[in-house]
Amino acid sequence: MTFSFSLVLVWLDLAGVFFFAVSGSLLAARKQFDIIGSLLLASVVSLGGGVIRDIIINAGPPVAFTNPAYLAPPLLATVLVYFLFSSVQRFTSLLVLFDAGGLALFCITGTLKALAAGMNPVAAVLLGVTTAVGGGLLRDITANEVPQLFDPKDIYALPAFAGAASTAILSLTGTFTAVSATAVTAVVFAFRVTAWRRHWHAPLAVRGWHRLGLGTAENGR
Amino acid sequence: MTFSFSLVLVWLDLAGVFFFAVSGSLLAARKQFDIIGSLLLASVVSLGGGVIRDIIINAGPPVAFTNPAYLAPPLLATVLVYFLFSSVQRFTSLLVLFDAGGLALFCITGTLKALAAGMNPVAAVLLGVTTAVGGGLLRDITANEVPQLFDPKDIYALPAFAGAASTAILSLTGTFTAVSATAVTAVVFAFRVTAWRRHWHAPLAVRGWHRLGLGTAENGR
Amino acid sequence: MTFSFSLVLVWLDLAGVFFFAVSGSLLAARKQFDIIGSLLLASVVSLGGGVIRDIIINAGPPVAFTNPAYLAPPLLATVLVYFLFSSVQRFTSLLVLFDAGGLALFCITGTLKALAAGMNPVAAVLLGVTTAVGGGLLRDITANEVPQLFDPKDIYALPAFAGAASTAILSLTGTFTAVSATAVTAVVFAFRVTAWRRHWHAPLAVRGWHRLGLGTAENGR
Repeated sequence: MTFSFSLVLVWLDLAGVFFFAVSGSLLAARKQFDIIGSLLLASVVSLGGGVIRDIIINAGPPVAFTNPAYLAPPLLATVLVYFLFSSVQRFTSLLVLFDAGGLALFCITGTLKALAAGMNPVAAVLLGVTTAVGGGLLRDITANEVPQLFDPKDIYALPAFAGAASTAILSLTGTFTAVSATAVTAVVFAFRVTAWRRHWHAPLAVRGWHRLGLGTAENGR
Repeated sequence: MTFSFSLVLVWLDLAGVFFFAVSGSLLAARKQFDIIGSLLLASVVSLGGGVIRDIIINAGPPVAFTNPAYLAPPLLATVLVYFLFSSVQRFTSLLVLFDAGGLALFCITGTLKALAAGMNPVAAVLLGVTTAVGGGLLRDITANEVPQLFDPKDIYALPAFAGAASTAILSLTGTFTAVSATAVTAVVFAFRVTAWRRHWHAPLAVRGWHRLGLGTAENGR
Repeated sequence: MTFSFSLVLVWLDLAGVFFFAVSGSLLAARKQFDIIGSLLLASVVSLGGGVIRDIIINAGPPVAFTNPAYLAPPLLATVLVYFLFSSVQRFTSLLVLFDAGGLALFCITGTLKALAAGMNPVAAVLLGVTTAVGGGLLRDITANEVPQLFDPKDIYALPAFAGAASTAILSLTGTFTAVSATAVTAVVFAFRVTAWRRHWHAPLAVRGWHRLGLGTAENGR
């Protein structure tokens, strides 16, 4: 990995951090948290997945703590949401779009970082998925909601898995380039957003069960 | 520790992973999560306790990420619950039985792994308990439920503590054998299942308080 | 850092552990958990923040697992709350006072430990705040409550940040003494308790929004 390539990786990672941070501040706004809660939730969702990844790789303190640049996106997101946001209607759409952007970037950067740290390909894909879904999972757990990850009327983890697996294959076959990376990002983003818009869903955990009671208190929401 | 002994340890650990994974998929089914959520919850509950233990021991990446064999039990559990499960009635009983099996095996393997990593006996017992109850705690937190661990009409952590402490004493006195290990497993399993069936419970957190309001919204359920 | 100074640091840290442990046992009592749940919640809140800090610093197993002295405060707190507590009325006040004591001590000891481990000042302040608010966050997540940290009618993280930043500045300028440390502790404690008593609050996450619906189901409580 050349120096310029790892610099691109840091910028992509910071972009993913920013997207997730905005989703955190938007959720804080929807839950009527204050501006400090907005900053905290933005930090948890944007830095949490990467911190978990770095703790698991176990090669020194997480980059979010050693590189202060990682603190800029949550601060920026909190300020932007505070000043620019005014309409209640578009919350969920915006939250999903920013979340999907973070997901698309993190499943790539997480997998590449794990491969660069010498993890085996299966573990690298797992860590890519963990990086991508971990922050959102922490966000929902912290805000005391049933994680979006488990919403049976939506598909969330599969796009991240597809992106992480593609990244690992491209990287191991030496075909991971700016073009293929952009393609993976676009496909994961489109997959995630379309799954949400069209209410794509996977089969329930038990074969043959009807989807009765979904959307009611029964499914834990 | 001879090679064959550590191989037995891996198999016992994988059996514990499988039991906990089934409990995760059963909870996912009861909460009407989809099959991806079933796989994720099975992975969290079956691998979470061991990942926390390995992160705390701090000797390289957690085994669940370095040994792909640990991914087989959650996959298997998800498929089994999907195809074999059909009745709604037996959910809770089955969940408790599989959970108790995982608890009984993990308090032993967790303690042995911590001792093998050079932790002191008190820390090893703590890590054994953490391994055994950590996955279930993560499962309930992730699924946004009050953890089973805190149910005042049940006893959950005590069997794990008894098993971990027995394992540490047997191991340090050189009397940890196939026979004594089987005995510990059986006692922990029986203790846990009987506590659940007979509604054994510990005293409340404050002396002299009556058990009024239990089972109502008051206790946070 | 001389030997006597680091010994003082351990005692301050243990005092913080004790304060947080009492807050955990009090919450367990209010939620009608049993005495084992009281011990577990006391352990999570009092040791959780430090365990997260030590995992992030990544210099060996967390001190809570290597030094058995750290297990004494949760045990003591559980026993004290069990025997001495009888009135339901004073729960919240007492919980906030003990929690504020832990917060005031942990933002100092957490920052000093991070600096001693060679983290940069920004990371040290972050880790001080993480140590101080992490245990309480884990306590509320574990007990399935919306974290106190996000209560928009209260200020929680700001006193911890002020204390951690002051500690870092005092330490780096060589003016961290028994007197200045006591002053920081007192100010953080007074800031936190006054913020709670007077219902000080920060602006909401979005500018110009009215504080309608606060205190209702809308804000997620």
